[in-house]
Amino acid sequence: SRSYTITLLPGDGIGPEVISVAKSVLSLAASLEQISLQFDEHPVGGAAIDLTGAPLPAETLAAAKRSDAVLLGAIGGYKWDTNEKHLKPETGLLQLRSGLGVFANLRPAVVLPQLVDSSTLKREVAEGVDIMVVRELTGGIYFGSPRGFRKDDKGEDFGFNTEVYSGSEIDRIARIAFEVARKRRGKLCSVDKANVLESSMLWRKRVFAIAAEFPDVELSHMYVDNAAMQLIRDPKQFDTIVTNNIFGDILSDEASMLTGSIGMLPSASVGESGPGLFEPIHGSAPDIAGQDKANPLATVLSAAMLLRYALGEEEAARRIEDAVVATLDMGFRTGDIFSAGTTFVGCKRMGEEVLKSV
Amino acid sequence: SRSYTITLLPGDGIGPEVISVAKSVLSLAASLEQISLQFDEHPVGGAAIDLTGAPLPAETLAAAKRSDAVLLGAIGGYKWDTNEKHLKPETGLLQLRSGLGVFANLRPAVVLPQLVDSSTLKREVAEGVDIMVVRELTGGIYFGSPRGFRKDDKGEDFGFNTEVYSGSEIDRIARIAFEVARKRRGKLCSVDKANVLESSMLWRKRVFAIAAEFPDVELSHMYVDNAAMQLIRDPKQFDTIVTNNIFGDILSDEASMLTGSIGMLPSASVGESGPGLFEPIHGSAPDIAGQDKANPLATVLSAAMLLRYALGEEEAARRIEDAVVATLDMGFRTGDIFSAGTTFVGCKRMGEEVLKSV
Ligand SMILES: CC(C)[C@H](C(=O)O)[C@@H](O)C(=O)O
Ligand SMILES: CC(C)[C@H](C(=O)O)[C@@H](O)C(=O)O
Repeated sequence: SRSYTITLLPGDGIGPEVISVAKSVLSLAASLEQISLQFDEHPVGGAAIDLTGAPLPAETLAAAKRSDAVLLGAIGGYKWDTNEKHLKPETGLLQLRSGLGVFANLRPAVVLPQLVDSSTLKREVAEGVDIMVVRELTGGIYFGSPRGFRKDDKGEDFGFNTEVYSGSEIDRIARIAFEVARKRRGKLCSVDKANVLESSMLWRKRVFAIAAEFPDVELSHMYVDNAAMQLIRDPKQFDTIVTNNIFGDILSDEASMLTGSIGMLPSASVGESGPGLFEPIHGSAPDIAGQDKANPLATVLSAAMLLRYALGEEEAARRIEDAVVATLDMGFRTGDIFSAGTTFVGCKRMGEEVLKSV
Repeated sequence: SRSYTITLLPGDGIGPEVISVAKSVLSLAASLEQISLQFDEHPVGGAAIDLTGAPLPAETLAAAKRSDAVLLGAIGGYKWDTNEKHLKPETGLLQLRSGLGVFANLRPAVVLPQLVDSSTLKREVAEGVDIMVVRELTGGIYFGSPRGFRKDDKGEDFGFNTEVYSGSEIDRIARIAFEVARKRRGKLCSVDKANVLESSMLWRKRVFAIAAEFPDVELSHMYVDNAAMQLIRDPKQFDTIVTNNIFGDILSDEASMLTGSIGMLPSASVGESGPGLFEPIHGSAPDIAGQDKANPLATVLSAAMLLRYALGEEEAARRIEDAVVATLDMGFRTGDIFSAGTTFVGCKRMGEEVLKSV
């Protein structure tokens, strides 16, 4: 029988609750498919700072690296917000992404028919939206140097960062995006600010060049400000979007909110080789942490992505996704997606209901 | 009688059409208030490239500087899209903003009751939205150096830009934003990415410090990815937003699209002294240029902002704004805001109708 090791990183806030549900669902789906899973749990983010003094302990990264895939809950919280940079939970997450080399972040924004009314968009605009944002995750202004603070001779303070991309960094994320688009509806929109930024001019040039390898995919280019508008004006014009780290951060969150149910949205981060990182799109929601209010489905669906993309276990992935749809069809809803006529449940209970359908 | 010189910069695409309408409206409103206006028209953007070889001819900048205020149409078009940077229309606009020192860009996003159905947001979400985005306009990654392209010793290409802010650049835009918020509903939300970027950490620290001068304004901070979501989830939570150049570019366009009528939205850019720059939020729309299809109202309303903020001519500004509302109330609509039961008009005719109500 197939056997894999999964690193679980619950993290902060609602992280532990949603990971606990996802772990049960993952275990059941795996055992029903004769897959044996080993779980290895480690601290990251604020929890790791409190426990070890570092947001990504060496042991956590080492464990993640030798496992087959990593499932993360969420990181961050008010408690650590004013920490210095090397003691911020976010820094641990960035170190993890970089340490695993997962440069391609896949963020689907899908409006489920059952949840179309959760969107603040008019029904006819939201219905059928199905966008995949491919975000570059280990480069750009998040990691560029020089960065930091300096004073000039007049005593004036400066804070600065460097947005930088190499041609090969762009090529590899572009290839992944073209491949994703090819398996979807064959349309790729590359988003940049090439009318102002040199980093974007190189981006546009290299993406354009890579397009020659994918004659079956239709490529377009859009400025980031226009993309922010078009996502609201007519989100259905988009199939796959590829963009840099910071624009991807902004646009993927914008796209996810179009669905009105970010508590439902998973993500996958993958590299050239080595374990992938799977996490819900939502944050650690410290305001509802520990209250059994969180929606665990984004993490459950991230576990399904893990089975499919990291382990190649399509049947087990399908089991989970079908179970989520069945649970929604039966009317179970956490607070974030609740509407009149549905059954209000907490995080744990939602997990139990999903388990029944796996 | 009061007398002023206005620099008109029609620019590219629909720019000349909308400036021509705005000029008539401005002239009439001024003469009815015993104001004498001198107009001085100059090329900028693609038009200036074609005419003089530079996107901002020295003569255009000089004329703008010695005038009392500048009214710009729009710049850019497919024709110049592949030009090198120093020959891009956008470069002319950036040189103009920088040359005039207009570091504060005020971009209102208001859902007019007459146009609430143009929004793709549900009526109850869109109704009453009234946001002012204060965007830093002459700093950050748009202007930071070093910037450009380089090759490393392995022949790998890099494109790079620098996001940089000085403390005093942040202080001055923060003060303007607090003052704007004070005159509105007293709430200011500062948007940054201080969990990742040093430039944003300095931003947050300085905005926080300036808040002490404005105890009557309620300050909050939000990460840019969350802001991109919250604008869609619940736009009415925002009053005034202050943010850097690139985040402001993205978020102000996103906010403007919430209204569903970016053909209606003006903007004002001002500095410490010297003439301000007034322009519609929308672009040059090359696909409809010269076809009498453009909505001139954003430029007409920019002219009203010019009268109010640059010339202190409140009555004349009011005349124009009231005329626009009256024209909408009479049911006249250009294509972008047309809906069943209203009267479809072109750019010129819309101008004529506004003139009747000035
Ligand atoms: C927490 C933060 C560092 C992170 C990011 O900016 O990448 C988050 O916003 C995300 O999108 O996963
Ligand atoms: C045309 C472009 C350079 C400009 C900008 O990015 O500032 C435009 O998008 C705007 O927002 O006025």
